Amino acid sequence: DIGVRDYQTSHRTLQLPGLVNIAAFVPGLVSRESADLQRVTQASIAAGFSMVRIMPVGKEGAISDVKTLKVAQQNAKRGAYCDFNLSIAATSENAHQISHAAGEVGSLFIPFNHLTDNISKVAAVEAHFDAWPKHKPIVTDARTTDLASILLLASLHSRRVHVTAVTTKDDIKLIALGKEKGLQVTCDVSVYSLHLSQRDYPGCPFLPTEDDQAALWAHLETIDVFSIGSLPYQLAHFLGKPADVTVGIADALPLLLTSVAEGRLTVDDVKAKLHDNPREIFELHEQLGATLEVEIDRPYTVKPTAAGSSWSPVEGKVLKASIQRVTFRDEVVCLDGSILSVSPRGSDMSSHGALAAANTTTTVS
Amino acid sequence: DIGVRDYQTSHRTLQLPGLVNIAAFVPGLVSRESADLQRVTQASIAAGFSMVRIMPVGKEGAISDVKTLKVAQQNAKRGAYCDFNLSIAATSENAHQISHAAGEVGSLFIPFNHLTDNISKVAAVEAHFDAWPKHKPIVTDARTTDLASILLLASLHSRRVHVTAVTTKDDIKLIALGKEKGLQVTCDVSVYSLHLSQRDYPGCPFLPTEDDQAALWAHLETIDVFSIGSLPYQLAHFLGKPADVTVGIADALPLLLTSVAEGRLTVDDVKAKLHDNPREIFELHEQLGATLEVEIDRPYTVKPTAAGSSWSPVEGKVLKASIQRVTFRDEVVCLDGSILSVSPRGSDMSSHGALAAANTTTTVS
Ligand SMILES: [Zn+2]
Ligand SMILES: [Zn+2]
Ligand SMILES: [Zn+2]
Ligand SMILES: [Zn+2]
Ligand SMILES: [Zn+2]
Ligand SMILES: [Zn+2]
Ligand SMILES: [Zn+2]
Ligand SMILES: [Zn+2]
Repeated sequence: DIGVRDYQTSHRTLQLPGLVNIAAFVPGLVSRESADLQRVTQASIAAGFSMVRIMPVGKEGAISDVKTLKVAQQNAKRGAYCDFNLSIAATSENAHQISHAAGEVGSLFIPFNHLTDNISKVAAVEAHFDAWPKHKPIVTDARTTDLASILLLASLHSRRVHVTAVTTKDDIKLIALGKEKGLQVTCDVSVYSLHLSQRDYPGCPFLPTEDDQAALWAHLETIDVFSIGSLPYQLAHFLGKPADVTVGIADALPLLLTSVAEGRLTVDDVKAKLHDNPREIFELHEQLGATLEVEIDRPYTVKPTAAGSSWSPVEGKVLKASIQRVTFRDEVVCLDGSILSVSPRGSDMSSHGALAAANTTTTVS
Repeated sequence: DIGVRDYQTSHRTLQLPGLVNIAAFVPGLVSRESADLQRVTQASIAAGFSMVRIMPVGKEGAISDVKTLKVAQQNAKRGAYCDFNLSIAATSENAHQISHAAGEVGSLFIPFNHLTDNISKVAAVEAHFDAWPKHKPIVTDARTTDLASILLLASLHSRRVHVTAVTTKDDIKLIALGKEKGLQVTCDVSVYSLHLSQRDYPGCPFLPTEDDQAALWAHLETIDVFSIGSLPYQLAHFLGKPADVTVGIADALPLLLTSVAEGRLTVDDVKAKLHDNPREIFELHEQLGATLEVEIDRPYTVKPTAAGSSWSPVEGKVLKASIQRVTFRDEVVCLDGSILSVSPRGSDMSSHGALAAANTTTTVS
């Protein structure tokens, strides 16, 4: 097959360390007997993500106390294909409860725009800032004035806060202003907010407008992390498409590297925002033996969804990168796009940050 | 008349310096040919207020540019009975405009909950923080998350901000927290929010609930200033009562001193929050020759509104203080509750703060 071989000599292969998805959405997270967490980790490792931070808000409930945390932990015992950590979601009433679970989760998530259990009062959030251990990350999806409230409380309590799934011009500008003035704030933007807008899907309220999207690109330096989040799943639901729980995971890196091929991003941007920065912000463990090899510059069109299979938010688009090989713990787990038959060797790293912080404290005092 | 004389020996007379109403509501402020400003200043001096800061938002418009400022200045030329200053209101679009008027007004007011022209976006407010002269006060009536937004911007820009007409538990707690953490924030609470609640007037959204009111009293140390504001006027409108533009002015000090008589406040609280603190926060001039004499401990019942006369928000209540004598510029202008026939000798002090700040700068550099 000489044609293929010729083609192969014209493309480039890129080596990357195992990536991090800091906001993995698992619909059945707290549903008993759900295999969603396992399936998400499997799709993640195949897509180059060797570490995923699971958002604590699923489709039918959230990790918001010790009981729901136990359900998620139980589901995780089926085995995960990449490392992961769990978080806990703040509600208006659980400020005390969460302090009991703090040691077993990676971060506190303060939801304002999620499917369930949003917080609406500054006073409730204030209680969480007081109850949550000082060294552990706080993440929020707050927007507009809610975002300002959170940033104020973070500032008053001298705490770091990470804003997830930033979508609008006003929010990214507020975060940029905060950073400029010395606030300890970091943020992520979904890969899909960078590549899809309300021009592609009119009336879709959780996608950026074209103006918003332009502002996100203009503030690339303000964006610490690229994430996936629940946006692809929500989009599928909004459009009435048949969506698998893994929707959006496979296309994330190819989409970003297509933007690299088009000169809008550098490989360093991708590495910084999917590996270096996530590890630093969330104090994640270094994953030796987790690597991936990506082929770039060979364009292909994402096929329209076949009947009975899962929809892709980028169907019909031309992508210019594909993942050729993924290793996890020095074992090849994925080759030329196919997941090999390996056993799930991912670990629950939820308490990793807690231990690290405890060690640090010991060293200092 | 021996009975009266006996009675007189049992009461006390209190001397106070001329008071400040930092939030005087003038309905016809920007209505051409309106006498409201004159009438408000006349009622104010009779009630012991020798200085009033006029809120820039009236009933039919606001001072929001040079043109509307001119109308208010023109109305003021009828003559004012006490000193006053004017402010300018921020709108979503006038960040540049207001910089032209800054020299002629005492402060910038950022309205969120007013009758007209409210601001709804953090981004618009941010533009005002950048445009407004650094040394001049910023006042806002923002609540809940809007309040948090303003406090965040104030913090990021290292600016002082004054929150007017605080009404709720959550807001006073947020301000208390901000003060505790070093934010440069001050606030006022309307005399009427301290003395009337939704228990008195069910369903009235701008009055505190009983819980809110209890929280306001519990945070007395957080309250820098007692104000009058537009609350009495709004309340009259809400209840369909015949309200004069001066509604609420006459009863303010008697209400507070009744709380003194009942042991809930001290005379020092009243003096601090109606004289010392307002002058300090808003860099107001010292008014020599402005004094008042108040009789306390002689209870009387506020009469129900007679047909054709103006309603009082405290009609039927027992008050324990009445103003006996007011001097302004060393002239007695009010005696035993009656305004004497004097000419209006109040001055527009709007540019006073600007000059003071300019002098300070000169001294320092
Ligand atoms: Zn190849
Ligand atoms: Zn407990
Ligand atoms: Zn606190
Ligand atoms: Zn690494
Ligand atoms: Zn007397
Ligand atoms: Zn101009
Ligand atoms: Zn600014
Ligand atoms: Zn004085």
